[in-house]
Order: sequence, then structure tokens, then C-alpha cells
Amino acid sequence: MITLTSDFGSPYPAAMKGVIRRHTRAELIDVAHDLPRGDPRAAAFWLRFVLPEFPPAVHCAVVDPGVGTDRDALVVRAGAHVIVAPDNGLAMPPARALAGDDEDVEVRTIAVDDPASATFHGRDVFAPTAARVRVALDEAGAAETGPATDPEAVADALASMDDLSPASDPVDIVFPEPSVERENGDVVAVDGEVLAIDRFGNVVTNVPGDLVRGRDWVRVDGDLTPVAETFGAVDPGERLVTVGSHGYVECDVNDGRGDGAFDLRPGDSVRLVPDNVSL
Amino acid sequence: MITLTSDFGSPYPAAMKGVIRRHTRAELIDVAHDLPRGDPRAAAFWLRFVLPEFPPAVHCAVVDPGVGTDRDALVVRAGAHVIVAPDNGLAMPPARALAGDDEDVEVRTIAVDDPASATFHGRDVFAPTAARVRVALDEAGAAETGPATDPEAVADALASMDDLSPASDPVDIVFPEPSVERENGDVVAVDGEVLAIDRFGNVVTNVPGDLVRGRDWVRVDGDLTPVAETFGAVDPGERLVTVGSHGYVECDVNDGRGDGAFDLRPGDSVRLVPDNVSL
Amino acid sequence: MITLTSDFGSPYPAAMKGVIRRHTRAELIDVAHDLPRGDPRAAAFWLRFVLPEFPPAVHCAVVDPGVGTDRDALVVRAGAHVIVAPDNGLAMPPARALAGDDEDVEVRTIAVDDPASATFHGRDVFAPTAARVRVALDEAGAAETGPATDPEAVADALASMDDLSPASDPVDIVFPEPSVERENGDVVAVDGEVLAIDRFGNVVTNVPGDLVRGRDWVRVDGDLTPVAETFGAVDPGERLVTVGSHGYVECDVNDGRGDGAFDLRPGDSVRLVPDNVSL
Repeated sequence: MITLTSDFGSPYPAAMKGVIRRHTRAELIDVAHDLPRGDPRAAAFWLRFVLPEFPPAVHCAVVDPGVGTDRDALVVRAGAHVIVAPDNGLAMPPARALAGDDEDVEVRTIAVDDPASATFHGRDVFAPTAARVRVALDEAGAAETGPATDPEAVADALASMDDLSPASDPVDIVFPEPSVERENGDVVAVDGEVLAIDRFGNVVTNVPGDLVRGRDWVRVDGDLTPVAETFGAVDPGERLVTVGSHGYVECDVNDGRGDGAFDLRPGDSVRLVPDNVSL
Repeated sequence: MITLTSDFGSPYPAAMKGVIRRHTRAELIDVAHDLPRGDPRAAAFWLRFVLPEFPPAVHCAVVDPGVGTDRDALVVRAGAHVIVAPDNGLAMPPARALAGDDEDVEVRTIAVDDPASATFHGRDVFAPTAARVRVALDEAGAAETGPATDPEAVADALASMDDLSPASDPVDIVFPEPSVERENGDVVAVDGEVLAIDRFGNVVTNVPGDLVRGRDWVRVDGDLTPVAETFGAVDPGERLVTVGSHGYVECDVNDGRGDGAFDLRPGDSVRLVPDNVSL
Repeated sequence: MITLTSDFGSPYPAAMKGVIRRHTRAELIDVAHDLPRGDPRAAAFWLRFVLPEFPPAVHCAVVDPGVGTDRDALVVRAGAHVIVAPDNGLAMPPARALAGDDEDVEVRTIAVDDPASATFHGRDVFAPTAARVRVALDEAGAAETGPATDPEAVADALASMDDLSPASDPVDIVFPEPSVERENGDVVAVDGEVLAIDRFGNVVTNVPGDLVRGRDWVRVDGDLTPVAETFGAVDPGERLVTVGSHGYVECDVNDGRGDGAFDLRPGDSVRLVPDNVSL
């Protein structure tokens, strides 16, 4: 299995699939090709959410504002999974999530033979590399045997690929942890950060859902906002706080865009205060 | 084969696919993931149109405004097909279309063990259920053998799943039939209803295409409108009536949105009068 | 393998997949279903870019403003590839690219039994034809054996299909070559044409990238514009000239639409002049 993720839109990913099919008949599964353009941080967030649902696989992920520059291309082993991606940090948060254990993440660079005229690295570098990794895994017997795939076998297969070499200092993206204030054991405030905006304008924060679940109201940067399990709990156009499918607190608008209503962008800080405390 | 349908956008369906791949390597085919959000009626319309084209399969369909409420999750057998969906009616119109015969539709509920913290029912309830149904069918020999699959074998396989129990009173959606007025055998008026708006703004009614085919003009709620086989038969921005790929009368605009131009929304009534009658 | 391309949006292509699955379990790969509506020329451009990446396959491509008219349906052999498409020219540029040699392109028409009521040719004509071609190839031993598939075996398999007959005069689309002015061997101006606008508004010309690579500035219809490898080289909202993944010169805007900023549409002529010449 090879999963494919990019910000390429359409029909570019099909060119990557064609290239892969020249190397291997491994199953291809699209994760998304409409990720925010040129935003490795958003890609890292969504991949960290989605990839751990899969059994061991090769994941080809290309969101690459640095195309045309001399950033490296990476092959990252995370347990029995392998991520093929540009060296801009997007691979690291999902790799840590896939490995479960930071010790089980191993990063290698691909020797890229890049004449000046090559311009579509997704097709010309990342897709064929993902295909060759898949073939190497299959040949090494680390085939798609599901959750039982042995990380050691995957590591050995990668070690056998001559054009991979250990990465010295890969770029990393680290998502901040929220800061939780407590008084007598009760949460009185959480200072979080916006991790991503989804395509509906929902504002995804780094605040775990448990901190608002069961409450009726919460102050978002001072403004009292209802907490609800469904958008329909508030009128169209009204703001709400909910817990997204990813488990984090979202600042949303029913039938509208939360990013506009809350004036929040990726990287912004956001303070959540339970209403029973500060009112 | 498992087909997947939702209003989740991207990349949430990939999480469902990852979960399914932990259970089975059955082929996955996307029907659509950009259906109108939270609109089981629109989902029912499109599934009734698309699913009957498939040979017997498991269909996982999640458009679910009730997530977070206590609606049931259903496993609906329709002939040799199985639909896994929330109990909000969306499964019933396609089930009747797949079965051909209402008698051959059988509805069961899934015992959902739902801790308060589960928030992504597509991934946590519907995807694994669809996967387990697929596995049960495969193990029962009701495998993907094409149109010849035996409905009895499918029924037996479902009966063997311990966490399914007969549904007492599933929610249903019934699409209204248009009311046709005739004089001396000729159609003089049709009172129909808007079933759905597609993503281009085309207004899909419940009026069968045969009632307008071959005519040059028809009155839509009183306004004389050309009937055409192609959008290009009228100038850009002009209104037309056509027969959509689904076989129903559509109220459209060339290079524009029919829902705005005709002021029609899902559920609205619409009166079509052949021009040779009322002029 | 069968690839699928259309301007149908969603969920119509799923109906085509269901129909194909009634004939064959061949792998299905989507190229794109969001191509510009009713624009065979744009489809031809993108297919010419994407399809040559694939190993030999059957390609079903439906962008068809003529649906409802009496245009033919074609089965085009291009080397060991087969394209199934309406007779509006869209198949010819990718066929020539796939064959490498114009002599190795062979065009046949499908006998279409088309009662007046058939309205979804993608589902009712093109999908089943692509499926039957795939089955005929598989039965003839011209199966999906990768790059080694023999064009002769493909030709023989098509010749054995009774409902195909040689096409007399298929519609063609020929992309114009740019006109290059040189002085003493140096390029002093290129008169090109806009081939396509992608969904981001990027203006794709027919001018080969080599003509601008390595330059810092170029005049586009007289206006001095920076040449850059990445959008980020200019400020948001600023115009730039770049070389797209397809190898041609694009007129783009960082975080904006090039078609609006440059006032260019498909078919428009565009004159590029290296800055060191005319300044």
C-alpha cells in the first residue's frame, strides 16, 4: 500500500500514480490532494491525524514550498511505516505518531539527481522513491502483512537501498502543547494555539477536547461561547466551540467560517476560560 | 468491495480507509465525499442514483447531522447489497432501489459502544462496521462474485453477526411522486418537487424526463422556458429545462446557477405546464 | 487498469465505476473529474500531460459538450494504450503523445445503440465500452503486463471487437507551436498561445520552459515580469512567470489568479520578449 498526500489539486497526482504504476502494482490510497498550498505545518497536522489509522504502509506526502530550492528529500521510517517527503518538517509529527516512540523514527535522505530542468518533484522524485521503497519492502519480505509487519524488516530493507543515506539534521515541526492553569485541581484557563484551519474555516486548536467536554459555555479570548456537540445546536451564523473529529477544541460557526468570526489564524494564540470560573 | 460516501470533505475519509485496511483488503471505491453537509435527503437521492449501478457490495454512507445524539447506526440489507449508515433515513431510498422489491430490504441496528469521548463516528463506528460486514460476507462465501451473489447468503452472514439486532422502527425518507394532470390522455400540468440541488446549482426535480422530452418549451411556475438537451442550446446566463443524467427534469442555467435563477430549494414545489396547453 | 477522466464533478463518476465493475475487476485510477466543463481542448492538454506517465492502460475520458448530438464515440489505440472518448478531438493529442509515433495511432468508432432516452453517455456508452475493451485486451493476453505490453496484441484485440469499425474522419485538436524569433542565434521574441487555465488561475502557454529558464525578467505582452522558480519569490498578489510541472511557461500570480492579472484566456496569443533584448 502507498498513500498519497499533496497540495497539488488535480490532475497532477494522477501523474504520480502513473509513475508509481511503472514500478509496482501496490495499492494506492489518496489521503488528500487539497491540503493548504505550500503549508507543511498544516500537512503535518492532518497527516498526524490520519496516518496512524493505517496499518503499516509507505506514505508519499508532498507539500513543498521549497521546490526549486536545495532542500533534501527524505525517507523517514516510523516503526513499520515509511514516509517519503521533502525535508521541511511535515514528516516528523506523523512519524512520531506512527512510531509511538521517538526512538523508533529513523531519517534518511534520498540522493536526488536534479538537472535544472526537472520541475515536478512529486512526479520525478517523490513518487518514484515511494515506489522503489515499496518494492524494496516487498522484496525484503516486509510486505503488506498488516499490523504484524516487523519494523526491523522495514529498517533492513531501507538500509539495503544504496541511494539513501542517514540525514544529519532534518527540519522538524513541533506542535506546541497548551498551557493549563489550575486552581485547587480545577482548570481555570488554557492558553492554546491554532494548529490549522480546515477547508470549512473551522479553527482547530491544540487544546484537548476533554478540557471543554461536558461544559455549556467557555470564554474564547474573553467572549462567552456555547459548547456544543453538533453545529445544529446553535442558529446558522452563530459561533460555537466544539470538539473536532481529531479530538481537539474547534472554534466554529454554524453554516459559516470560524476563522473569520473568531479572527484566528494558524499559529495564533487563543485563551479558553471555563465560564463557571471567570463569570 | 466497499463503497464510501460522506459529506466529510478531505482528509477525513482517508482515516476511514485506514481503519478499514486494518480489517480487510477489500477494494475501496469512493462514491462522493462532497455531498451537501448534514443533508441525509440529498445523500439518499444521490445514492439511489449511483448505487444501483454497482454489482453487490457493502456501501458505507455517512451523512449525519445527528452525530453526538443517540440515533442508531444501521446495517441495511437490500438484496445482495448491504448499506451501513446512520438511522436518519438516507439508507432507505437506495436500499429500495437496490432490492428492486421492498420485501427484500432488512434493517438491523449495530450495538454501538459509545463512550462520551468518541467523536468521529465515520471512523469509529461506520468504517469498522462496514469492514466487519465485508469480512463476514467473505467468510460466509457471499464474496464479491458479482451480480450472481445470493441475497440469502448475505442475509445469513448478517444474521451471524452477534452485535446486530433487528431494527424496530428505522427512520425513512420517501421521495414524493409528482402529481400529473391529464386531459383526454394528454399531460396538461405536473406538480413536482425539488429533490436536490447539485454542486453546480442545477435544480433536480422529481418529474420524470419523459414528461418534457421532445417538447420545445415548458412553463416552470408560469415562466416560459426552453427545453434543451444541452446547456449550449441557450446563451450563457439563460435558463433552460433539461433532463439530467439521473432521468429527472432539471431547471438549469447555462454557465450559471439554476437554484438562484428559478428561486428553488430542496423540498420546494414546482409546477411544469407544457407550453402547447396553456398558451 | 482503466483510468477515468471527466468534467462530471461528483458523484457521477461513481456510476461509471459501478458499471465497469459489472464487467471487470480491472484497477480503476482517477485522473481528474474536475476538468473545465465542456472544454475538450483543456482535457486534451491535461491528458497529454498525464497519460504518458502510465504504463499501457485503457483510458476512459469524457468531456463532451456534444452529448445529445450525433457525434461518434471513439476507441483510439495509441501504441499499447487505448483511449475511449467522444469524437471531439480530446483523444488525439494524448494519443500522439502515448504512441510517440503518429503512425501508431489507430481510430475506431463504437456502434452506439442510442435510444432517445439515454442521457448519461459516460455511464451508458463510454464506461461499458472501456470495460469491454479492457476485457478484450485481457482475454487476448494483452493484459496489464506493464511497459512490455505489445501494441500488436492490443491492435488484434480491438480488431476482434465486432462493434468497432474504422473511423473515417475523426475530429482532431492540434496545439499550435509557438513562433520563435531569433537574431544571431539568440531568441529575441516568442509568439505563443494560451493552452489552458488551471483551477488556480495559472495561465499555461505553449512556450517551452527552456526559453525563459535562467532569465531574471521577461516581457509578457510588453509588461516586464520577474521569472522565478517558486511563487514565493514574489510578494503575494504580484505577477510572475514560471515554468509549470508540464514544462511550459506559465503566467501566474502568487496567492492570486494569473488569468485575471494578465487578462489571458485559452486560445489568446501571448508575446514573450527576454528583457535583455528590448530594454
